[in-house]
Amino acid sequence: MTLYDYLDSGNGYKIRLLLAQLERAYRWVELDILSGATRTAEFLAKNPNGSIPTLELDDGTFLAESNAILWYLAEGTRFIPGDALARARVLQWMFFEQYSHEPYVATPRFIVKHLPADSARRAELPARLKQGRAALAVMEGHLAAHRFFVAERYSIADIALYAYTHLAHEGGLELEPYAQVRAWIARVQEEPGYVPLTRRP
Amino acid sequence: MTLYDYLDSGNGYKIRLLLAQLERAYRWVELDILSGATRTAEFLAKNPNGSIPTLELDDGTFLAESNAILWYLAEGTRFIPGDALARARVLQWMFFEQYSHEPYVATPRFIVKHLPADSARRAELPARLKQGRAALAVMEGHLAAHRFFVAERYSIADIALYAYTHLAHEGGLELEPYAQVRAWIARVQEEPGYVPLTRRP
Repeated sequence: MTLYDYLDSGNGYKIRLLLAQLERAYRWVELDILSGATRTAEFLAKNPNGSIPTLELDDGTFLAESNAILWYLAEGTRFIPGDALARARVLQWMFFEQYSHEPYVATPRFIVKHLPADSARRAELPARLKQGRAALAVMEGHLAAHRFFVAERYSIADIALYAYTHLAHEGGLELEPYAQVRAWIARVQEEPGYVPLTRRP
Repeated sequence: MTLYDYLDSGNGYKIRLLLAQLERAYRWVELDILSGATRTAEFLAKNPNGSIPTLELDDGTFLAESNAILWYLAEGTRFIPGDALARARVLQWMFFEQYSHEPYVATPRFIVKHLPADSARRAELPARLKQGRAALAVMEGHLAAHRFFVAERYSIADIALYAYTHLAHEGGLELEPYAQVRAWIARVQEEPGYVPLTRRP
């Protein structure tokens, strides 16, 4: 397997974290998303949506979308529950992550960290951070009664939500008001095989 | 089962279409999302993210996120393929739909159709429609070589993408340039048990 990725991407990190915890070997290719490496004809032939992470499988085909890749790699392992409803709840939290969390927790971090200080996109920050606080409040409420997001055990739902949540402060979302979220972050970091985002494969 | 829903919601329609094709009976409760019916304490107790569709199961628990509900209802039926990689590709297209398609195809329709003509949110339309055209171009490219999105047969990936695509013109995205998308829409409409969005359960 080859993972096309960018080190500072939380979406890419989801896959790196799971692969580390699965102890699976893979080839890692970093693409500079800031200089257009995911918009070349060569890369668009691999993933027409031009996004990383993209996973090249042993049969030469490609799989895109971080949470779909997580599901593919985790199927049949301890990182997805066996019960049908619990499996659907894993997906519920992963769709929550992509629709209600990532654009408001990850995108501010991208704007602050990777765009020029005078970028016009800074005007998006107040509205995005407001939605980000709403997403964190939903997580805080759930974690008040649960150790992990689904079935009281660590799963790819936690990996998907952890990736950008633990870096939310880098985009201007302070986690201080969210005690349950901070306690859950500490639990994730204690899981066997945990690696930080900055660990180059 | 009880489906909390709003008739004009494409996300809700995904579930209604699948349930019709599965010939499953359910109770249908319409909530007026425009007057705050999904932001009441009563509804937030069912789904803390305050979104429809939300499915109440026979055990009294709730499942949210349209594509997670599709997965839960379709598991073990002809609407999800059996092969592990094909299943991950269904999820790939469903995550594409929620992240790269819905905010740019569905949200413009919501702004145009449901907000006042002088809404400040109309300023969002040009940027959103540009991204909507990018999403339609990705679909057009895929459908140039495939009859349906995954494994050459109709699945919940098609249902998820069809829901807002076939109504894209209502938000200002004309489908005329996308011949493959239009042919696929016609194929979806020929599937057994097809019902239109306007059909009240």
